[in-house]
Amino acid sequence: MHRTKVRVVEGVLDANDTIAAANRADFARAGVRVVNLMSAPGAGKTALLERVLGELRDDGVRVGVLEGDVQGSLDADRLASLHVPVVQLDTDPGFGGECHLDANMVRSALPQLPLEELDLLVVENVGNLVCPAEFRVGEHARAMVCSVAEGEDKPLKYPLMFRACELVLVNKVDLLPHLDFDLDKLLGNLDAVHPGVERMLVSARTGAGVRAWRAWLARVAAWAEVAA
Amino acid sequence: MHRTKVRVVEGVLDANDTIAAANRADFARAGVRVVNLMSAPGAGKTALLERVLGELRDDGVRVGVLEGDVQGSLDADRLASLHVPVVQLDTDPGFGGECHLDANMVRSALPQLPLEELDLLVVENVGNLVCPAEFRVGEHARAMVCSVAEGEDKPLKYPLMFRACELVLVNKVDLLPHLDFDLDKLLGNLDAVHPGVERMLVSARTGAGVRAWRAWLARVAAWAEVAA
Repeated sequence: MHRTKVRVVEGVLDANDTIAAANRADFARAGVRVVNLMSAPGAGKTALLERVLGELRDDGVRVGVLEGDVQGSLDADRLASLHVPVVQLDTDPGFGGECHLDANMVRSALPQLPLEELDLLVVENVGNLVCPAEFRVGEHARAMVCSVAEGEDKPLKYPLMFRACELVLVNKVDLLPHLDFDLDKLLGNLDAVHPGVERMLVSARTGAGVRAWRAWLARVAAWAEVAA
Repeated sequence: MHRTKVRVVEGVLDANDTIAAANRADFARAGVRVVNLMSAPGAGKTALLERVLGELRDDGVRVGVLEGDVQGSLDADRLASLHVPVVQLDTDPGFGGECHLDANMVRSALPQLPLEELDLLVVENVGNLVCPAEFRVGEHARAMVCSVAEGEDKPLKYPLMFRACELVLVNKVDLLPHLDFDLDKLLGNLDAVHPGVERMLVSARTGAGVRAWRAWLARVAAWAEVAA
C-alpha cells in the first residue's frame, strides 16, 4: 500500500514539473520573471506586497500579481487598489479547497495576465507551510514570510518550506518587544535547515526593512533568463 | 478530467470516514473522549495545552495527547514534561510531509496510547487551516485556535475550518494593544461563516481566559457517548 501511494504521489509531482516547465517557457518568451511568495496564514504576504508594489511600479518595474486563495478575493481587492494587474485564483473548486497552488492552476490563470507587459509577476500562494513548497509553478525564485508571532521553532517543524526558498522575510519585528521570542534562536534554526539563506528582518506595519525587500524584487525582475 | 478528480477525492474522504468510524468505536469502548485541536502554524495550540493539561490532571481528568507534526518531536517534548502520556505522530513518511492528520494515521498510533486509562485524548493536528478540517479522525469535538496576529480576515479565507469547529479559541489577546487589529471585525467574520459558534478570548502567554478553556475540555471529557 505504502509503495503504491508513494508511486502515485511521484506521478503527481512529475506531472506538475512538466507543466511548471511549460509555464517557465511561457514566462521566458514573455520576458517576465516570476516569484512564488509563500507563508503560513496571516504572516503578512499581502501586507508586504502592499508596501512595495506601488513604489516598484514608480521605479519602472512593471509588476503583476497572481493571487491564490482557497476562497474569496480579499487580498486581490487590497492589491488592485495599487493599480497593478491582479488576477484572482481560487482553489475552492478542487479538493474541497486545495491547500496550495500547483503548476496547472497557475497555467489556467495565465491567459488572464498581460505577461508581455510585465517585468515581474508575483504569485502569492495559499497560506500554508507544507504543500506549497512541494509544487513548483514555473517560478524563477521563491520567497517565504515567517512572522515572529509564530515562534522560533517553525524552520525545524516545516524544514522543506524553509529549504525551498531563496529568501526568508522575518516579518512583524515591531512586535518583538511584546513577545517572548528569541530572534537569534529563530535565525539559528533557519541556518540549521538552510545554512546561509538570505534573510531580511521586516515590518509591513512600520515599514522597517521593506526597502531591502523592494530591492530584492527589483533584482529578480532584472535577472537574465536561465534554464529552469 | 475534473469529474474524475472529484470522484477520486470523494473516494479518499469516504475511506477516511470509514476508518474514522472505527477509531470512534474504539474510543467508545475505552470510554475516552477525543478532541481534534487545529490551527495555523504558530497560533499557540501547544502553548494552550501546556497551560491546562497539568491542572486538568490535578482535577482528576486523565488526559493524553497525540501530537501530529510533519517532522520532529518539539511539541511532544514540551508536553511530556507535564507528565501526561504523549505519542508523537510524524507525517513525514507520507506525501513529502502530509499537511494534516487523517483517520488512518491516528489509527496507526492508537496501540501506543493507554486508551483505557484516559478520560480525554487531545489530538493536536498539523498546523494548517485547510486540509485538517476535511479529515475527521474519529473525534467527539473539534476546537481551533486563531491568533489575533493573523489578522481579522481568516474566517472568510478559510471558512471550512471555522465552520468545522465546536469551539474557536482567539489566542494572543495580550498582543491586541500592539496590533492594528479590530476584534469586533474578527468576531463578525466568525459569525458570518459560523453564526454563534462558541468562542473564547485567551492568552497562553498571560493565562487570560485559560480557565474557561480548561473547563471546556473537562466538560468534553465528561460527555456521554453518542453516535458519531
